[in-house]
Amino acid sequence: MSKVSTKPPSGTRDFLPDDVARRRHVVGVIESVYARYGFLPLETPAFENLSTLLGKYGDEGDQLLYRLLHRRDTLARALAADEVNEATLADQGLRYDLTVPLARVVAQYRDLPRFFKRYQVQPVWRADRPGRGRFREFYQCDVDIVGTPSLVADAEVCAAVSEVLTSLGFTDFTVHLNHRRLLRALIESAGIPAELEGTALIAVDKLDKIGTDGVLAELETRGIEADAAGKLLALIATEDADEAALVARLTEQLTSDAGREALDELVELKRLLAPSGIADHVKIAPQLARGLSYYTGPIFEITVADLAGSLGGGGRYDELVGMFGKQQVPAVGFSLGLERILLVMAEREMYPPLGIGPEVMVCQLGVGPADALGVAHALRRGGLRVEVYPQSAKLGKQLQYADAPGVKAPVAAIVGEDELAAGEVTLKHLESGEQVRVPLAEAADKIKGWLTTGP
Amino acid sequence: MSKVSTKPPSGTRDFLPDDVARRRHVVGVIESVYARYGFLPLETPAFENLSTLLGKYGDEGDQLLYRLLHRRDTLARALAADEVNEATLADQGLRYDLTVPLARVVAQYRDLPRFFKRYQVQPVWRADRPGRGRFREFYQCDVDIVGTPSLVADAEVCAAVSEVLTSLGFTDFTVHLNHRRLLRALIESAGIPAELEGTALIAVDKLDKIGTDGVLAELETRGIEADAAGKLLALIATEDADEAALVARLTEQLTSDAGREALDELVELKRLLAPSGIADHVKIAPQLARGLSYYTGPIFEITVADLAGSLGGGGRYDELVGMFGKQQVPAVGFSLGLERILLVMAEREMYPPLGIGPEVMVCQLGVGPADALGVAHALRRGGLRVEVYPQSAKLGKQLQYADAPGVKAPVAAIVGEDELAAGEVTLKHLESGEQVRVPLAEAADKIKGWLTTGP
Repeated sequence: MSKVSTKPPSGTRDFLPDDVARRRHVVGVIESVYARYGFLPLETPAFENLSTLLGKYGDEGDQLLYRLLHRRDTLARALAADEVNEATLADQGLRYDLTVPLARVVAQYRDLPRFFKRYQVQPVWRADRPGRGRFREFYQCDVDIVGTPSLVADAEVCAAVSEVLTSLGFTDFTVHLNHRRLLRALIESAGIPAELEGTALIAVDKLDKIGTDGVLAELETRGIEADAAGKLLALIATEDADEAALVARLTEQLTSDAGREALDELVELKRLLAPSGIADHVKIAPQLARGLSYYTGPIFEITVADLAGSLGGGGRYDELVGMFGKQQVPAVGFSLGLERILLVMAEREMYPPLGIGPEVMVCQLGVGPADALGVAHALRRGGLRVEVYPQSAKLGKQLQYADAPGVKAPVAAIVGEDELAAGEVTLKHLESGEQVRVPLAEAADKIKGWLTTGP
Repeated sequence: MSKVSTKPPSGTRDFLPDDVARRRHVVGVIESVYARYGFLPLETPAFENLSTLLGKYGDEGDQLLYRLLHRRDTLARALAADEVNEATLADQGLRYDLTVPLARVVAQYRDLPRFFKRYQVQPVWRADRPGRGRFREFYQCDVDIVGTPSLVADAEVCAAVSEVLTSLGFTDFTVHLNHRRLLRALIESAGIPAELEGTALIAVDKLDKIGTDGVLAELETRGIEADAAGKLLALIATEDADEAALVARLTEQLTSDAGREALDELVELKRLLAPSGIADHVKIAPQLARGLSYYTGPIFEITVADLAGSLGGGGRYDELVGMFGKQQVPAVGFSLGLERILLVMAEREMYPPLGIGPEVMVCQLGVGPADALGVAHALRRGGLRVEVYPQSAKLGKQLQYADAPGVKAPVAAIVGEDELAAGEVTLKHLESGEQVRVPLAEAADKIKGWLTTGP
């Protein structure tokens, strides 16, 4: 049989045990903080009907969807038709984010709590060009509150993700706040026609990456006059002395009440974030755009200095659920990108010890495997993680394996004939070489003592 | 916009919070037992190259694979070709089980421990006809030991899954043991030609479902003479007085040493299972066949009386890893089906209390939302799961919501102007109606007391 590639598909990864342990540490912190904020867990299928997914992520998003090829008779019929294309060959696709599935769930189940606070940590798939920190399979960690237009909900999701980062050991993140209606008003105040708002936002969204001159050039390419483009960039510039000055300047320069009301909401949101202790991390950022088309109110993004791009983002989307159900349901959420958090934590060496793998390796010294298994089960009943060296070998080889990379059992339990006859076991602390012989009934406690305070 | 269906795709499910809590309880037990047996966690991508998947599950399995449609230029080229079919439209597909990805991983990463003990709990996808307890997306919970032909490994995986069931509260399961080479020898001893072995196994595998007469008829349809078919069924019959009698009879009736050696392995395996305390659950079952074509040695299946089909199964597959790498690597594993375990546990009402959802609902009585959020954050810092009623409403309405289905916060924390001025908060135990006013600094402890021992 010819050998096939054993690499995971491009843009995906195998998570070996140490990787899984690090991912679980972070997901554990995320889920426990989300739970303390009163969020409930939700999980949805890996794939959705394409009718659910299409048209929610913009044209570019639709192109990045993974579609599931029809099978058997359905495929045969599709291939026999006059017209064969993407749309006729598939009607289901892999999940692209966790927000659209949530909107579908809210429309489907009428007996959810009125204020549905859910968290969801699951992979999503995008057929994007893979690159550093950009994968085709990656995890999102979302919190959303559905059912209230109150800014309390916006404050709660922002506080929850901030506390996740604090709990993981981050001290230097920034939560950027903006508002879709403020952006719209700023564009209007700059004299840009309403029909060019969408295209202007796409250019503004690149300010971080291509700078003022780059955005000016792109705005002109997109059909916006140089004068208006310059005005817009002056409006969203962040060169004010402080945030109060920024707010005062914008209040004066905005030409519509809608814009001033949106700005007031941001000021109020920031005030509601004070009790969480993260207000110092929060910044009103009129240049923040964010891509997804479904946002309607405040929008958020969270960054650290040493990572291009964001650790996560979110916003209010009061019209998305209504695309699935009979009624509009207001909602707001925040999504943390697990892969980005892991990347920064790895570079900064922020991980605690992993805590996986065997704590004890049971070695056989001239006894049968059933006797070694008997000792292993006794130690497991004592609560320890125990591996049995599975085949006959010299003791030295067994001890060497216990200490091998990827195994690293701190203690070996040696089962010999003498020990067996006496109801005892010899314990060896591998790092120090310390060795004692104890009654089997006391072995688990002895080992636990070694694990916590050493021999 | 026209409304689309909001149901999850056929054969898949949304897991609402209570479902997730029950699933996590079971997965938590599974993972903690697997860890105590010294297994390490592994996760692999949701999709694999089709070259990895095809040819491992038999023709029927290949037909059940979900394939990912090519995109953009690759799709355009495929559609422009003379021949357009399943094979030209996709080269990746969703994971069908967790064993083949493990074999790929073992072939790919050369620095894994020599005896690689891994567990993996992830969903798999099969485009099967959905039915009761049969889904298109479902979770498998696998343990495998790669790298040793020793029966100690077979014993460890059998003991681990048995202890999972015991830990979940099952007392009545049976672990059926058989051996691929014993089956082969039995078929030979019955006088069935070697080339009909595969087709005979498919018929034998249905003994549970269609009974002796059904299997006899099917064996004849598959070209096996009535005499040989009758002999085979007599050989695998389980009407012996006890297991010792079964072993003695088979030893006598088997016509090959290979068969007797396989039988000896099963007897030895059962002996190795004695120290785990589950030997009473283990039964040598010569009629057990199991479908997957990659097994080479002992095979296992675990059942309970009130479930048609099995809770899980596994076996030794010493040649699968070699299909991916340069060398043969022996391996043995056991896979538990999460959905089946959940089904039986639900029917038998075996779940402990869920432990999700808010413990406290913070209600506002004539104060601003920032004040309510301040109390919420203080209680969260005390370790409690806390929700804030997000908008203004009469107190009665807020309390009613705290007690609503899907919310069920046991305690309300009422924040009024008097309390605020005094640095206090009023706590109400919703079930009993008990109400006290305490300093905010003491509120978390007071609530924890109520949660453990009541008011």
